[in-house]
Amino acid sequence: MSTPVSPLAPTDVPDMPVISGVKLATAAAGIRYQGRTDVLLAVMDKGTTVAGVFTQSKCPSAPVEWCRAKLSRGSSSGGFARALVVNSGNANAFTGKTGRQSTSLTASIAAKAVGCSPNEVFLASTGVIGEPLDATKFNGVLGTLAENAAPGEWMDAAKAIMTTDTFPKVATAAVKLGKAKVMISGMAKGAGMIAPDMATMLAFVFTDAPIAAGALQSLLKSGVEDTFNAVTIDGDTSTSDTLLAFATGAAAANGAPKISRASDPRLKAFTKAFRAVLADLAEQVARDGEGARKLVEIIVDGATSKASARKIAMSVANSPLVKTAIAGEDANWGRVVMAVGKAGEPANRDKLAISFNGIRVASRGARDPSYDEAEVSRAMKNPKIQIKIGLGLGKGRDRVLTCDLTKEYVAINGDYRS
Amino acid sequence: MSTPVSPLAPTDVPDMPVISGVKLATAAAGIRYQGRTDVLLAVMDKGTTVAGVFTQSKCPSAPVEWCRAKLSRGSSSGGFARALVVNSGNANAFTGKTGRQSTSLTASIAAKAVGCSPNEVFLASTGVIGEPLDATKFNGVLGTLAENAAPGEWMDAAKAIMTTDTFPKVATAAVKLGKAKVMISGMAKGAGMIAPDMATMLAFVFTDAPIAAGALQSLLKSGVEDTFNAVTIDGDTSTSDTLLAFATGAAAANGAPKISRASDPRLKAFTKAFRAVLADLAEQVARDGEGARKLVEIIVDGATSKASARKIAMSVANSPLVKTAIAGEDANWGRVVMAVGKAGEPANRDKLAISFNGIRVASRGARDPSYDEAEVSRAMKNPKIQIKIGLGLGKGRDRVLTCDLTKEYVAINGDYRS
Repeated sequence: MSTPVSPLAPTDVPDMPVISGVKLATAAAGIRYQGRTDVLLAVMDKGTTVAGVFTQSKCPSAPVEWCRAKLSRGSSSGGFARALVVNSGNANAFTGKTGRQSTSLTASIAAKAVGCSPNEVFLASTGVIGEPLDATKFNGVLGTLAENAAPGEWMDAAKAIMTTDTFPKVATAAVKLGKAKVMISGMAKGAGMIAPDMATMLAFVFTDAPIAAGALQSLLKSGVEDTFNAVTIDGDTSTSDTLLAFATGAAAANGAPKISRASDPRLKAFTKAFRAVLADLAEQVARDGEGARKLVEIIVDGATSKASARKIAMSVANSPLVKTAIAGEDANWGRVVMAVGKAGEPANRDKLAISFNGIRVASRGARDPSYDEAEVSRAMKNPKIQIKIGLGLGKGRDRVLTCDLTKEYVAINGDYRS
Repeated sequence: MSTPVSPLAPTDVPDMPVISGVKLATAAAGIRYQGRTDVLLAVMDKGTTVAGVFTQSKCPSAPVEWCRAKLSRGSSSGGFARALVVNSGNANAFTGKTGRQSTSLTASIAAKAVGCSPNEVFLASTGVIGEPLDATKFNGVLGTLAENAAPGEWMDAAKAIMTTDTFPKVATAAVKLGKAKVMISGMAKGAGMIAPDMATMLAFVFTDAPIAAGALQSLLKSGVEDTFNAVTIDGDTSTSDTLLAFATGAAAANGAPKISRASDPRLKAFTKAFRAVLADLAEQVARDGEGARKLVEIIVDGATSKASARKIAMSVANSPLVKTAIAGEDANWGRVVMAVGKAGEPANRDKLAISFNGIRVASRGARDPSYDEAEVSRAMKNPKIQIKIGLGLGKGRDRVLTCDLTKEYVAINGDYRS
């Protein structure tokens, strides 16, 4: 990638531990990019359960439809997975019948390489939309990858799935399940076309905890709501959003209890750690928004409900005028008022309070009497900007993450065909 | 204005005729700008009726609340107007109690200058949000303007209400009402924070036709739906959207029939001409979108309803990825598919057809077999881009106008405090 790394990239990248039962390998299959890896194969031990959430787009990609079909097929018997194939460079979206043929072919090549049924193969693709994906390029490649797959290749894996991302995104947690230590590790890619509506473009989380597919699906569904679904880069929901979670169950050998329901009280610490991994990955997606120079956290409280707070926060987070003001380091609360006003949710102008990085700039429908432009201007130079909006109506509260809108976003998207 | 005139500015600017019963004058009141006019006073003859539509923002500006109150007051007896005061440089929005005091003071200064009741004074303000508007600056100024007001100053008037606009926007039509010729003339300002939700930022239309306020209101409400409400620059709905129409009735002296109902069959030609003036002004707003280099027309047909077609067209028109692709002269139908998919309206990927400037690029859910990249690339160099989206589901059709998203938009809005 010729683009410099985002200034918002995390400075501490965790050492990614082995997840027992998962092996990874990457290759350069020449899908679109030259001189970089573009295929990831994850091989999971027998008995690995799987859960997934996907884009709500009415025009989803072929791999999204593939995964949905495989998951719904397994809903009664428990969904199992043996392999995950991810490619970058081509989204296999809006590719018609060819797209469906491509997913079938990829799955059967992977199934042969791994020694499983195509129904146990999950797929995700990211990159250009509308170009046919030549799955014959996976012939041979996936066989070699299956032979070479190794437990610790997390950073390589996270790099192989990047498109306009400027850094690989990984997160990990260790937590007790019963008396056993279990691990949760994940990776994500983002950058543009990010306004997840169930999941982000691509994210994969793996654990060795023995969790049944139904319970894993519940964990995932409730986990995304305040993590991936609370992030927006540009309000443009992808055709390819895919978040898959895999539980190998290998920790059962160390005494971890087998979990069949998400409401199992023994799952409490795990649930918290699982959400923390999702939240960490989601924040990294916001930190790597195309052209981003500021990470922006929008907190709305005093709304009539959480759903109302979410709509208002998203209206602010997706407003190009708010985002360009932040790029210009301007604490332009007038534009925040505009974005609150256009959200269509209950709001009373004369009760509104707005602060930037803890400094109250507006209260009771007008500029705050204590407003000091110099003080606020200094605060706006911070790479992390928190906008807090108090509606003064009820107890609804929500938080979303976004980034600023810079000339670089326009440059990236005026050139890159995604 | 230091910004160069938009390359999309109309090349034919009409000669603006006198509207009998309307006089205009402008001045530099020093609201915010130096060395340019920033106040417009329009003085209307007694008996002038008025109609208005306004922003649906939950945080409307003080002048919007003022006009709404005056219009609803007059709804049974018919709304009458004698004066319109418009200032640029300050929107008098999110200014609390001070904002309300400002509108009252402005109206009483204008009422004294013109010799009418403050209830017959209509107000609009555009510019920065959140700064108090010092209405004492209108003292003296409005008196002089009332004395100097003259029938033909349309271009000066349209210039005085500009903010980041790069050209003044006027339109006019002459049409028969009964056997009399009547005139319709209007002006608008736009540029940014344009996603009208009832009306655009500021637009004013005047006619000498004798039309009762109720009928005028019906004409205006139905007229905006496919004109101003079908334009978006950045999806950001202003706090100040105001479209007012004034009918002086002066043409009654030439034999124009007095019209009391919008359904009056004698109004047919007038209605058409009135909509044409609104459509012309609305298109000029799109042509002067901040930083715009391309005028983009989005036509959706085959939707399940007109409302569904509108939602899909707006989803495409407001997508930053579609808009940056057009700025980059890239016929990126993949992003169009994405925007159709995220709209949440009925769509079937495998029936979708997309063309750019008449060249079909995608059909039946995949790239069109006849697709020729060189041919499409040539077409994308045109300053006017038409994207046609066929859904193949029903008879719903709609059309919206927008512009591309360029680095200049980001530059303008990272610097200008609106």
